[in-house]
Amino acid sequence: MSADEFEELSHDEVRNTMLPPTPEEEAGLADLYGRMEREHMIPLWTQIGDLMPNQPSPQAVPHVWRWTSILPVAEQAGELVPVGRGGERRAIALANPGLGGRPYITPTLWAAIQYLGGREIAPEHRHSQNAFRFVVEGEGVWTVVNGDPVAMRRGDLLLTPGWNFHGHHNETDRPMAWIDGLDIPFVHYTDTGFFEFGIDRVTDEATPDISRSERLWGHPGLRPLSALQPTVNSPIGAYRWEHTDRALAQQLLLEDEGVPATIEPGHAAVRYVNPTTGGDIMPTIRAQFHRFRAGTQTRTVREVGSTVYQVFAGRGEFVLDGERIVVETGDLVVVPSWTACRIGAETDFDLFAFGDQPIIERLHFDRRFIEEENV
Amino acid sequence: MSADEFEELSHDEVRNTMLPPTPEEEAGLADLYGRMEREHMIPLWTQIGDLMPNQPSPQAVPHVWRWTSILPVAEQAGELVPVGRGGERRAIALANPGLGGRPYITPTLWAAIQYLGGREIAPEHRHSQNAFRFVVEGEGVWTVVNGDPVAMRRGDLLLTPGWNFHGHHNETDRPMAWIDGLDIPFVHYTDTGFFEFGIDRVTDEATPDISRSERLWGHPGLRPLSALQPTVNSPIGAYRWEHTDRALAQQLLLEDEGVPATIEPGHAAVRYVNPTTGGDIMPTIRAQFHRFRAGTQTRTVREVGSTVYQVFAGRGEFVLDGERIVVETGDLVVVPSWTACRIGAETDFDLFAFGDQPIIERLHFDRRFIEEENV
Amino acid sequence: MSADEFEELSHDEVRNTMLPPTPEEEAGLADLYGRMEREHMIPLWTQIGDLMPNQPSPQAVPHVWRWTSILPVAEQAGELVPVGRGGERRAIALANPGLGGRPYITPTLWAAIQYLGGREIAPEHRHSQNAFRFVVEGEGVWTVVNGDPVAMRRGDLLLTPGWNFHGHHNETDRPMAWIDGLDIPFVHYTDTGFFEFGIDRVTDEATPDISRSERLWGHPGLRPLSALQPTVNSPIGAYRWEHTDRALAQQLLLEDEGVPATIEPGHAAVRYVNPTTGGDIMPTIRAQFHRFRAGTQTRTVREVGSTVYQVFAGRGEFVLDGERIVVETGDLVVVPSWTACRIGAETDFDLFAFGDQPIIERLHFDRRFIEEENV
Amino acid sequence: MSADEFEELSHDEVRNTMLPPTPEEEAGLADLYGRMEREHMIPLWTQIGDLMPNQPSPQAVPHVWRWTSILPVAEQAGELVPVGRGGERRAIALANPGLGGRPYITPTLWAAIQYLGGREIAPEHRHSQNAFRFVVEGEGVWTVVNGDPVAMRRGDLLLTPGWNFHGHHNETDRPMAWIDGLDIPFVHYTDTGFFEFGIDRVTDEATPDISRSERLWGHPGLRPLSALQPTVNSPIGAYRWEHTDRALAQQLLLEDEGVPATIEPGHAAVRYVNPTTGGDIMPTIRAQFHRFRAGTQTRTVREVGSTVYQVFAGRGEFVLDGERIVVETGDLVVVPSWTACRIGAETDFDLFAFGDQPIIERLHFDRRFIEEENV
Repeated sequence: MSADEFEELSHDEVRNTMLPPTPEEEAGLADLYGRMEREHMIPLWTQIGDLMPNQPSPQAVPHVWRWTSILPVAEQAGELVPVGRGGERRAIALANPGLGGRPYITPTLWAAIQYLGGREIAPEHRHSQNAFRFVVEGEGVWTVVNGDPVAMRRGDLLLTPGWNFHGHHNETDRPMAWIDGLDIPFVHYTDTGFFEFGIDRVTDEATPDISRSERLWGHPGLRPLSALQPTVNSPIGAYRWEHTDRALAQQLLLEDEGVPATIEPGHAAVRYVNPTTGGDIMPTIRAQFHRFRAGTQTRTVREVGSTVYQVFAGRGEFVLDGERIVVETGDLVVVPSWTACRIGAETDFDLFAFGDQPIIERLHFDRRFIEEENV
Repeated sequence: MSADEFEELSHDEVRNTMLPPTPEEEAGLADLYGRMEREHMIPLWTQIGDLMPNQPSPQAVPHVWRWTSILPVAEQAGELVPVGRGGERRAIALANPGLGGRPYITPTLWAAIQYLGGREIAPEHRHSQNAFRFVVEGEGVWTVVNGDPVAMRRGDLLLTPGWNFHGHHNETDRPMAWIDGLDIPFVHYTDTGFFEFGIDRVTDEATPDISRSERLWGHPGLRPLSALQPTVNSPIGAYRWEHTDRALAQQLLLEDEGVPATIEPGHAAVRYVNPTTGGDIMPTIRAQFHRFRAGTQTRTVREVGSTVYQVFAGRGEFVLDGERIVVETGDLVVVPSWTACRIGAETDFDLFAFGDQPIIERLHFDRRFIEEENV
Repeated sequence: MSADEFEELSHDEVRNTMLPPTPEEEAGLADLYGRMEREHMIPLWTQIGDLMPNQPSPQAVPHVWRWTSILPVAEQAGELVPVGRGGERRAIALANPGLGGRPYITPTLWAAIQYLGGREIAPEHRHSQNAFRFVVEGEGVWTVVNGDPVAMRRGDLLLTPGWNFHGHHNETDRPMAWIDGLDIPFVHYTDTGFFEFGIDRVTDEATPDISRSERLWGHPGLRPLSALQPTVNSPIGAYRWEHTDRALAQQLLLEDEGVPATIEPGHAAVRYVNPTTGGDIMPTIRAQFHRFRAGTQTRTVREVGSTVYQVFAGRGEFVLDGERIVVETGDLVVVPSWTACRIGAETDFDLFAFGDQPIIERLHFDRRFIEEENV
Repeated sequence: MSADEFEELSHDEVRNTMLPPTPEEEAGLADLYGRMEREHMIPLWTQIGDLMPNQPSPQAVPHVWRWTSILPVAEQAGELVPVGRGGERRAIALANPGLGGRPYITPTLWAAIQYLGGREIAPEHRHSQNAFRFVVEGEGVWTVVNGDPVAMRRGDLLLTPGWNFHGHHNETDRPMAWIDGLDIPFVHYTDTGFFEFGIDRVTDEATPDISRSERLWGHPGLRPLSALQPTVNSPIGAYRWEHTDRALAQQLLLEDEGVPATIEPGHAAVRYVNPTTGGDIMPTIRAQFHRFRAGTQTRTVREVGSTVYQVFAGRGEFVLDGERIVVETGDLVVVPSWTACRIGAETDFDLFAFGDQPIIERLHFDRRFIEEENV
């Protein structure tokens, strides 16, 4: 067989061409495998196909969580479970059905709905894990990050990079729920995490409209001379909806004027970045926002790395490895690595997205395949 | 409680201060948790201590594999198991006893003994996984990497970075065994791997003393004008023992002359690097070589990231979280993340080491703690 | 003499300790020096003090140009000199009195006042030289950079990085004058420049309020997915006064609240940066804006590299190598390399600044000395 | 005229299409220009063609210095001029005939022949200027760089990066001459240089065969764990001829075997690099070595930046802007920026080269034009 033919073969097809062992060989192998087990050794040849598949073969599966289902669960938890020291947060993880009951939405990422009742306080702690919050509805909570109070409002992305003390407090009588994204699974898997408790309340109970980080950093193309070194994480604590909305609207207007601005027709998109480097907000998590004109269909893309989408507004569909899922505001969809993904917009359609691509790219495992370009 | 006191507390200590639920609360919680399970949701508050421990709490355990035990297993496999298409390699993984029977020496790393009988050929394939081989004894095999035949000899480090076709052939009548190191577990976990079969033999059966990559790149401080761009992986196919040995010997001689050269008294060390960047040889794997004078004791170091050592020559000890392991030539020791590690040299003592620190550092999770400096 | 004593000596002091030559030596040297001249050779030993002074010894001198003096000159040029193909621009360079009549404000930098009469057009061209414009008063001109019309208004910084076609047109009946900054001297000196003529008018005569580059890039912490690669130059065509003003005001407010934000008490400052890297706007030119509270005095700083300041608002003083210069709106001051510089604010005081520090820093010649810290 | 036509035009051709001024206009202009002169202002429109030529138009000219002419001058200086404190070095600069009598071989670079008599010592000093030495013949001198004695032998490149104390001492009774390369003109022009005297002898008079820097760093692909940070300058003090020669020989052998290794047929070349980054040895100076088989002709290349070549062995020719210069061992040739350069080898032909390309590239002014590819 030529190399070209082999490249087309899967491990299973190759395995089927091998001769089965004789009974004596079976006995010898049994002895050998027993000895290996005692020595904490495992042969490659019996499991290479599982260990090194021809292409990524995730255990995680595509899945959708409906906002209309998860919000009531969070509300019920709000009635039954206190928030405070020990449990730390009233956060409920979305558990990928393929990942064996672990609270992981993908092998690397955690996504949860967090719920804070009126006047409640989630006490301060800090950890190596990088975190963000995204608000699909509501307001009235301040998250206090490293002493800086950050108002949380609809459409905002709020950052809590690793090892910053943080707590939340609700200044209203109404509960508020939002989405947390973290790299908990990755940090757990790589044994890289540290955790410390902080004070039982928050270190600054002020309720300013914008955070100090925004006052210092939220000016396009300008950086303070008092902070000129690149930082690992973005120094911006809050990416406000008004900026995201305006950036996306401008891309579509520019497209209307014939200027290159969108990534494909009818599809505007921005990446949230660290202004000290122009790169991703945190070393393990990418966050982006997509806006589609009604009727837009993306191309079908496979990419290494996993992504979670939350519908922010409108109605549309995901076609994932050929399966169609219709989604509406608040619904969350997970797209595992190398899943073929096409997105369609029934109405004007706004999507928040986060993924583990910074991990993939920093380690040079990134690959991307667009089906329509490879027919 | 003040923040300082809390920082000292573990999750378990904090949890014990919480009130137990009443029977009605128990019932409500049971209903809530059932509903969560149906919705693929999992609460954070019941498992935060396991998910986010105060410091890394690896499942992997420190362990030693004796060369005198694993080499005979490989020899027995040599008699019973053919090498060829399908099984691909007669490689036997060292399985960390803490990792539940998976063929992983740490969560991120694969270490195996590979055995090739006289005149045998391991056919070509390529994969995303990054690989190296290190030779503790023997010679006579050529590994052909991307068409370049690379002789394997005692003390050499040979690279097979991701997506290079490679196969091996033994030009002698004697078997040869060596150590393979790869990032198979990490690639499997992150769903980033691709695999392709190549030809059934090797693409170039020449048996040169040194590889073409060495002829082009093996000149200190010089690079060919025909290849000026930085590359993701080192372009050097073989790091020869004579260079490693000489570099280490010089460090100890310089130390004798009072010149700063070693990393602590009696402890010389080099890192294998990519000459196009000065950084690690591959994006996921670090490789280093340590030489200790007889009688040297290192400080006790904890660091984020896991390391595997193979004794190349001499006799010494590892003290891992207080447990002492005496080792000799060929023995392999695994040191999981954040394990307290002290190394002592009974005789002059040479150690090859590899680890996942490039992953940790590129994602900014690196931390290091030296007990003697923090008393 | 010990090394320490020598370090304190200047070349002149050392030279005075050498014996004068005898008449025979004089004759031999005359013969030698004549032979050298014929061979295009020059001895080091006779000029090392000039070539390699103990510290930078610029030919450029500190100097001030008064807005009330240079604006009338530009107005007179507006009456006498047409703008158009050939002369290209009605720009009048500020010539450092120390630089021998060359049109350079420092050895590396060009600063000019440019004047465009009502309804005039400066035709398009492009060149390797990097350029910016800063507007101290007036409005009504659009600069068209690479086809993108950019309105020029008071307080704005407008970029024309190397090799972008650009022209200007005045849409009003009133003239407008502004400051041009370029690296013309550096490019001339290093023989790195190319120049091409473009069309006689401008490629897009639209007069939008903001440029397309701002619509795409002027959103803090957000970048378009359609442009993810880092670029050599900032993609932002206009840095608007409203953002600069707000960023500076916030720094002073934060200072009032006790939050670290200013670089010294009463001294707010921002750097204009390339959002794709967080670094300087162009490879050769740094631009910054300083705001001082009335009564503020800076420390006395020497730094390698030269800087030009223009007063944007208020009244203050520069003390340069001990000489005091009082300045008001529109005045331009040049501070050569290693000149001791202290700035004082009589009123609230706004200063625009540009310099060649990116050249200095990329080549690792940067040094900084603060007199008050080294007493 | 269309843009395309304009792009082809030179400034002179454009200027000739402008109308000459009337007598009244002449008078007004005279008044204006007088006023400008008093205000230290200079119009752009009268000198744009000189300031911003269509392509680099260096004052420096191509030139050759014969080894048979410059070595005797150095020998005569050896008889007449002492070496010691004050004059510092018996170095004689090659002065480009186009640069108006300044001791510069190009606007940015200094090249000199340095001559040290038997048993002489050149005392220690340090300066911001980056320096190297290249030895075309002789041996017996040690240059002591930052306390590390470095033997100088035929074919070696020795580095003295900025701000390292250094002196030289001749341990033999025979004189020795070599070539110095520095960035003196660039540092002078940019006002970036500092200088300090050191001790009158050298700090370490040992005469080891190789330097401590080589013992620590001269091992291909290996770096000491005691020095893991990237450094601005190469930590290697000496690039030995045996390595350069072997690297070049291997490239030609690989070419014979059909393996890509040379940059064009018969033309092997290496760049001397900083092993901590893979980049140039120092921030302002590039050094390379070229080897041509007898009969090889390069393509005709123009590039931004200036280069100096010294013939190390063999006989060949430079064709510079069409002028042919035949050269032999020791001859030095300067190629100013954007000069069309073709090199031909009459015999086997070895060339050392250095240039200012790191300056050009770090500031993004690099351009390259190969005539044969653009016919």
